[in-house]
Amino acid sequence: MIIAVDAAGGDYYPKSPVEGSIQAIDEDPNLTVILVGPEDIVNNELEEHDYDQERLLVQHAPEVIGMDESPAQAVKTKQKSSIVTGIGMHKKGKCDAFLSAGNTGALLAASTFLLGKLEGVSRPTIAAIYPTIKGPRLVMDAGANLEVRPSMFVEFAEMGRIFVNEIMDVDDPQVGLLNVGEEEEKGTDNLKKAYKELQALSNFVGNVEGGDIFSGKADVFLCDGLIGNIVLKFGESIPEALERFVKKGINDLGLGAEEAKLVSKVLKASLAEFDPDKVGGVPFLGVDGLTMVGHGSSSPLAIKNMILSAAKCVDHNINEKIVASLK
Amino acid sequence: MIIAVDAAGGDYYPKSPVEGSIQAIDEDPNLTVILVGPEDIVNNELEEHDYDQERLLVQHAPEVIGMDESPAQAVKTKQKSSIVTGIGMHKKGKCDAFLSAGNTGALLAASTFLLGKLEGVSRPTIAAIYPTIKGPRLVMDAGANLEVRPSMFVEFAEMGRIFVNEIMDVDDPQVGLLNVGEEEEKGTDNLKKAYKELQALSNFVGNVEGGDIFSGKADVFLCDGLIGNIVLKFGESIPEALERFVKKGINDLGLGAEEAKLVSKVLKASLAEFDPDKVGGVPFLGVDGLTMVGHGSSSPLAIKNMILSAAKCVDHNINEKIVASLK
Repeated sequence: MIIAVDAAGGDYYPKSPVEGSIQAIDEDPNLTVILVGPEDIVNNELEEHDYDQERLLVQHAPEVIGMDESPAQAVKTKQKSSIVTGIGMHKKGKCDAFLSAGNTGALLAASTFLLGKLEGVSRPTIAAIYPTIKGPRLVMDAGANLEVRPSMFVEFAEMGRIFVNEIMDVDDPQVGLLNVGEEEEKGTDNLKKAYKELQALSNFVGNVEGGDIFSGKADVFLCDGLIGNIVLKFGESIPEALERFVKKGINDLGLGAEEAKLVSKVLKASLAEFDPDKVGGVPFLGVDGLTMVGHGSSSPLAIKNMILSAAKCVDHNINEKIVASLK
Repeated sequence: MIIAVDAAGGDYYPKSPVEGSIQAIDEDPNLTVILVGPEDIVNNELEEHDYDQERLLVQHAPEVIGMDESPAQAVKTKQKSSIVTGIGMHKKGKCDAFLSAGNTGALLAASTFLLGKLEGVSRPTIAAIYPTIKGPRLVMDAGANLEVRPSMFVEFAEMGRIFVNEIMDVDDPQVGLLNVGEEEEKGTDNLKKAYKELQALSNFVGNVEGGDIFSGKADVFLCDGLIGNIVLKFGESIPEALERFVKKGINDLGLGAEEAKLVSKVLKASLAEFDPDKVGGVPFLGVDGLTMVGHGSSSPLAIKNMILSAAKCVDHNINEKIVASLK
């Protein structure tokens, strides 16, 4: 299997993509990784490391799309960027997936434009992987589609169900619609219509509320991308906020350094699932191909985990399963 | 000052409203409280307590609106309910405010229908009080208006600013619009239009993201009621979720009972601001009168705090200030 990785994306390139790719090929002997980016920068970084040169290759792509560039504009004008080059390689079948910790919007735009959509899919979607007390689960859409029509929720539900089942190893994943209350008649007209359409799915548990996310009442939480993005970022801010609340709590209680250290250690262990490095990255579901995006601050570990997750998606043929389920 | 309290609302009536009202008149000698509800039930509870009988009165209202009843239907058919009776008393000037821990929808419907709206207000709104590292702040709308037009955001911003300034004692409160990114061109068409209208306000800080709530980047976070309700309930679920994550973390680290106890104590102290009892309740801003709603699970302390908060709203003439600011 060949996975192409954006060597010029994210806050810590080329170090994170290069080191993460080396870790991935070390872990999975069936894997070949192609680093896509400006070859001088990539090769300079590679010189610092020992690695299997037959399974870690470089594809030159001189242009870099910045994290804050306008996605559509960047994809149009930077044809020699790592993102456009990598997705072009995937389109031509030169690799089984392309992954990036770079500009999410540019990656989504290039994926949709160059690879197209799977049969039966109106719009590709991006899912956020959320820590629940039952383990990681999906909140989707997480920002690719700010407004979602009722029929799109049904497609998202199916794509999410397949991903959670195949990649997160959850049996018979349940789907819930995020709303202001559990009753069928709650919410906007759009949500009421979505509820009706979702009832056709055997695994639809009905409306769920914001308080049901952490308890894992559903395995796939459906919402529009505006809500998903706000909830995602709110959730991501919990560990840091908590650190500051706890610092204050420890002061208020007049505890010492030893006790503070213990509490800090426990919190770190308890919130390990909140670490974006553990998740690695998430796929754009519904694209005719496999592209995944990681957090801008991805570490080498995050890149490694994203590569291994992509390999699992390829192994499990999730796109074929999505197309079959939407027929 | 006379505050009327729903003695037949919430999960713990008549105990919570009765005990909370006694605590409130004990704390504030200028306060008279009227308990509104079925008099046999209320008097039975009152017999259990010592209190100043001149400043704690009972208004009989035989009907009770259940927590899950359809709001519009309940308000129409239960004219002798504590909610309709209490708001009717307020309308006639027999009390300065009416508070309830009961059915939020029924309280909002009766408030809007019986009291009407303040001059210049299109739609009353309900705000959620949120713990941030800077102290409690507002996220609004929290569920009264699932869809919000751009001009309504401007009204919400002004009402929120006045409440945060007068009641939460924050100087020059800043207003932010919850969105998927900071840039002006982010979000749905509705949010883009709202951004433009909000620019007329001197205290508008622009778009803010989900990750900015806990850090208190704004003092008033504007959103539609669908987002506000989901974020509110998600936030409320943090302490319980955390308890379970931490239990697992303590197990994983193999810590003992003493250490677990310490961590639990620190968490409790650190998350004190998440306790809905501390907040007490929130007003329906924009109503021509003062009605406030508390959490269904309100304790006596919550009711006491809601009464004291209502008294502060009356003292500070926040409705007059809202009308003046919207002119």
